[in-house]
Amino acid sequence: MKAYRIRHGEKIDGLQLTDIAEHPLDPYEVKVAVKAVSLNYRDLMVAEGAYPVKVDTPVIPASDGAGEVIEVGSQVTRVRVGDRVAASFFPRWLEGQPDQVKIRSSLGGDVDGMLGQAVTLHEDALVNVPQDLSYLEASTLPCAGVTAWNAIFEVSSVQPGDSVLLLGTGGVSILGLQMAKAAGLRAIITSSSDEKLERARALGADETINYRAVPEWQEEVLRRTDGRGVDVVLEVGGEGTITRSLASTAVGGTVAVIGGVSGFGGELNPFSLVTGASRMVGIYVGSRAMLEQTAGFFSGAGIKPVVDRVFPFAEAKEAYRHLKSGAHFGKVVIDVTK
Amino acid sequence: MKAYRIRHGEKIDGLQLTDIAEHPLDPYEVKVAVKAVSLNYRDLMVAEGAYPVKVDTPVIPASDGAGEVIEVGSQVTRVRVGDRVAASFFPRWLEGQPDQVKIRSSLGGDVDGMLGQAVTLHEDALVNVPQDLSYLEASTLPCAGVTAWNAIFEVSSVQPGDSVLLLGTGGVSILGLQMAKAAGLRAIITSSSDEKLERARALGADETINYRAVPEWQEEVLRRTDGRGVDVVLEVGGEGTITRSLASTAVGGTVAVIGGVSGFGGELNPFSLVTGASRMVGIYVGSRAMLEQTAGFFSGAGIKPVVDRVFPFAEAKEAYRHLKSGAHFGKVVIDVTK
Amino acid sequence: MKAYRIRHGEKIDGLQLTDIAEHPLDPYEVKVAVKAVSLNYRDLMVAEGAYPVKVDTPVIPASDGAGEVIEVGSQVTRVRVGDRVAASFFPRWLEGQPDQVKIRSSLGGDVDGMLGQAVTLHEDALVNVPQDLSYLEASTLPCAGVTAWNAIFEVSSVQPGDSVLLLGTGGVSILGLQMAKAAGLRAIITSSSDEKLERARALGADETINYRAVPEWQEEVLRRTDGRGVDVVLEVGGEGTITRSLASTAVGGTVAVIGGVSGFGGELNPFSLVTGASRMVGIYVGSRAMLEQTAGFFSGAGIKPVVDRVFPFAEAKEAYRHLKSGAHFGKVVIDVTK
Amino acid sequence: MKAYRIRHGEKIDGLQLTDIAEHPLDPYEVKVAVKAVSLNYRDLMVAEGAYPVKVDTPVIPASDGAGEVIEVGSQVTRVRVGDRVAASFFPRWLEGQPDQVKIRSSLGGDVDGMLGQAVTLHEDALVNVPQDLSYLEASTLPCAGVTAWNAIFEVSSVQPGDSVLLLGTGGVSILGLQMAKAAGLRAIITSSSDEKLERARALGADETINYRAVPEWQEEVLRRTDGRGVDVVLEVGGEGTITRSLASTAVGGTVAVIGGVSGFGGELNPFSLVTGASRMVGIYVGSRAMLEQTAGFFSGAGIKPVVDRVFPFAEAKEAYRHLKSGAHFGKVVIDVTK
Repeated sequence: MKAYRIRHGEKIDGLQLTDIAEHPLDPYEVKVAVKAVSLNYRDLMVAEGAYPVKVDTPVIPASDGAGEVIEVGSQVTRVRVGDRVAASFFPRWLEGQPDQVKIRSSLGGDVDGMLGQAVTLHEDALVNVPQDLSYLEASTLPCAGVTAWNAIFEVSSVQPGDSVLLLGTGGVSILGLQMAKAAGLRAIITSSSDEKLERARALGADETINYRAVPEWQEEVLRRTDGRGVDVVLEVGGEGTITRSLASTAVGGTVAVIGGVSGFGGELNPFSLVTGASRMVGIYVGSRAMLEQTAGFFSGAGIKPVVDRVFPFAEAKEAYRHLKSGAHFGKVVIDVTK
Repeated sequence: MKAYRIRHGEKIDGLQLTDIAEHPLDPYEVKVAVKAVSLNYRDLMVAEGAYPVKVDTPVIPASDGAGEVIEVGSQVTRVRVGDRVAASFFPRWLEGQPDQVKIRSSLGGDVDGMLGQAVTLHEDALVNVPQDLSYLEASTLPCAGVTAWNAIFEVSSVQPGDSVLLLGTGGVSILGLQMAKAAGLRAIITSSSDEKLERARALGADETINYRAVPEWQEEVLRRTDGRGVDVVLEVGGEGTITRSLASTAVGGTVAVIGGVSGFGGELNPFSLVTGASRMVGIYVGSRAMLEQTAGFFSGAGIKPVVDRVFPFAEAKEAYRHLKSGAHFGKVVIDVTK
Repeated sequence: MKAYRIRHGEKIDGLQLTDIAEHPLDPYEVKVAVKAVSLNYRDLMVAEGAYPVKVDTPVIPASDGAGEVIEVGSQVTRVRVGDRVAASFFPRWLEGQPDQVKIRSSLGGDVDGMLGQAVTLHEDALVNVPQDLSYLEASTLPCAGVTAWNAIFEVSSVQPGDSVLLLGTGGVSILGLQMAKAAGLRAIITSSSDEKLERARALGADETINYRAVPEWQEEVLRRTDGRGVDVVLEVGGEGTITRSLASTAVGGTVAVIGGVSGFGGELNPFSLVTGASRMVGIYVGSRAMLEQTAGFFSGAGIKPVVDRVFPFAEAKEAYRHLKSGAHFGKVVIDVTK
Repeated sequence: MKAYRIRHGEKIDGLQLTDIAEHPLDPYEVKVAVKAVSLNYRDLMVAEGAYPVKVDTPVIPASDGAGEVIEVGSQVTRVRVGDRVAASFFPRWLEGQPDQVKIRSSLGGDVDGMLGQAVTLHEDALVNVPQDLSYLEASTLPCAGVTAWNAIFEVSSVQPGDSVLLLGTGGVSILGLQMAKAAGLRAIITSSSDEKLERARALGADETINYRAVPEWQEEVLRRTDGRGVDVVLEVGGEGTITRSLASTAVGGTVAVIGGVSGFGGELNPFSLVTGASRMVGIYVGSRAMLEQTAGFFSGAGIKPVVDRVFPFAEAKEAYRHLKSGAHFGKVVIDVTK
């Protein structure tokens, strides 16, 4: 059994394929044969050494994966051998509001993640994957899907008919678009590519804006919303976007700050929040309960997470590079079985 | 009958005492003999020309006042002649979330405010003042009291036992301290004056921090909260306070951005919100319903808004200057009857 | 100009076609040429004398109607001549939680309603109708649509993927089904008619149960939800349904009590709420803000309220009788223009 | 080491003092030397065989206890030897909304409770007790304190200044009174004893009503609230109280149904919820997080749970009988160390 390992900051080329040491399971541990792993900007941040939580020893990277339970400890009750499961980003944030203890450890950050042929986790970190989601699809949800869910349905109190603005066509934005539409929201999305905007429209986007063609895209957002602005923005980061996002928001609306590899340029004057009674909320992925809800919603609503491209396990570095290029539309996935 | 008027940006000396023109009341109008007016930083912003909503013509300044109903229009049902009333900051924000229409007009901003011997308002702008609040006390609530209420009890979902951080000893902070303690919250307050901190402690403050003695006061806040941070900060503005406020906040906590005459210096990196799952919420005063709740709470809990000093009507400019000096502890009030 | 009038308790045959007296508009009044009126069980309750709010004089019945603004008072700002509008059930419940004042008056209950060729209302009672809803469609929303909205999206904190149980195929249930599906919820519906269940399935119902074939339908609900129960039940009343509804509900779930002409038989032991940590919430229609959200959601999601049958103005009594028969699927509407 | 045991339904005399078998701790187990146990009506229900969850074998009764950690399993991180702890009513309901799994097991119901000199529990079931609460005081909180907290602060969205009605002077009502006052709420309490009402007034009750002197006490509640009614009722059960509780509630208010040994007499017509837009919510104690908040609130606000009478361990049956007599005011506690 093999797994990739990486030291924080060693860049993509630091990814090493290593043997996994075997050990007998503790009473609450579960061994999972990983089938698929999905990458996030956050995994690039780990490789670049830009992730806020660090460790000195090499870790198995990547938070997002799905697989099959192949062995369970003596006290395990949540899953059984043969179950299809996904792992939760924060193994100890089970539900409710976050706190220091819950967010201390994250898969592929300070503790081993999912980019291996087998991983061993506490049973509390796992959720069952609905039958109608494939392993490739399910692997996209723990970080990107939950982040979008949290931003739209948890920190914002959206009601059906409200509007959401998605910036770009990366994983969080596209999964957010899919969920927003399935939940009866109005969705506006931006991209620098008309072709990607066309694909977004096919996924249900009500309004599309090419931010290269319209640099002052916040004005266009206002125009498309009768001057009112959107209820929620999924702010995934970028040079100078935060002030435009805030300007795109309705009175009392929410900018969900997600961040990403490119960071935020420009300054923000906090007073600009006051006259719009606006809210900016940091989204640090989410809880296991949110993962269960996200997976259940994709399954129940019959929507399939958009997978941009699938790489075999041996080509993990190429998958990272593809993500870094920004050429993708939706999620970049590694098929661990190939 | 006389009223002060001022043009935006004409400074404190621009305050002019003028005659009020009389006109017959419209069916829904109410005429109030003003008894007391309380000043806010926002009134200094109007005088300085720094208030975001402007008009070219002189306005009667000041949003916060209380008085007695002396005449009512033919259709008025909310109040009767003889009622003791206070006016709501936004005459059209009656309840619920704010929107563009509700916050378009504010007393003493773009429409006439309260600094006169008599004012005429739509009945919807008025609330009844509980018997056990004097006019001087009631006049402190519409902007400062409601702002503190909104920050603590509306945008933050505090529960009894949660903690709140108050910056300085101005009107919003002291009214916030009084309400926080009466609601079973833990209160930490800062000041550059040990004497003011002593007075805050007498009002119930659980922890006091002299930010001159402890410039890195955010570390002290963490120390006094077992490293956890507070649930809510009332951020009233100041050089470089916003990053310290954010650092003082618990995971998932809220910085209520209130702003003020001194503005915000320093930069804020939005990504700093992410790893703490923190929230920054702009507080633009609040609704008439919040004013009713605030007044009812002060009355029911038997707490009296702290009045720093009372000036007679003729000395309105001195009252403005006293507020501007920052020497006050609690609210600066003008007794219109003297 | 004609309008129907009825005294509470005079039965359907008590409906009288009468002339409308003309009067000049007050400053805030609006005159509407009614185009369509939709009936509710509540209108049958008025006719039967079973409605809790009564008056002795004849009233124009029916709360739900839509039409065109033909004249406005001097101070009106919310609407203009030519606007397409619908009226809100409670003219004074604009938004937020209900209180005694807000729910004192209801159209077609204690004050004149919509079943006339023209009606005069305070501007606050009106909302604009989105262009893509016809008058016939828009007329179905003020009572039935808002009731379903309130039950599903206000008093219950449903999230996408949650489940809702709808009892029967009357107006509230069918509009609730349409909204639930458009909002990404799982919908289970009951009926005594397989044909109606088939139509409900065509509208998106995930599960259908014939309660005549399965008298212990609560057990079937549990079976279809893996023993968990549904998150929300829209309890529209009926012999012995309340205990079955409660038994169909998940731990922590909500029974939205709507009531209706047939009343509730059987007893309810309040202790049965405890062990399921269940909630029963009375739904008394809703606010003007909910009507705006409901209309906006139908419009934005591209769903059309199901109209069962349209009667001409002259056949209003037949429309009442058709509703009373229970044969309908969706809403019974009167076209006032025919 | 000794513990009481009882079979469901064997009455108070069925309590047997038995030896506790020793066993080595599992990795996540904690052994607690119990210092104090507090009784609840629910413990009488177990003795009477009226508790909804039953087992055939004898159980150690009582959910509410506090003590000192004397041994921990190898993986325990939540507590250390020497810690002062209390146990949570539902060992598996850690936080968030309840579900079937979380409320399946309760201490002293289907699994062993606290009425012994030592108990062994999973670490997840324990919370730390603040230093300024004695063991006797802390033992009152897990069922009675959490029930009152849940009813007032979780299921009802009370704001400071809102009103709460407490029925009688049992444990839940008195702890509820204490918390309500410390949180800035207005409290109305009923009793058949003027002497008890006098004691309640000393604890801060704003209004007291002798329900023997005023059988139609709901009318008196309305009178004392200007005809509006209260925001929340803590309905602890009794002959015909539920309809009076509902009649005492403001439009949109909440009846928190707690139940108790005397049950509910009389019928409830669900339609009565509709016209008041009222809510009835079943309170099934609460989560570990609520216990932490309750204990933290009592500690931070400096309030001491009212202990009616303390019995030595050997007189546990007398303690049960005293509770059953209804003569108490506040909590009945057993000092396990005496």
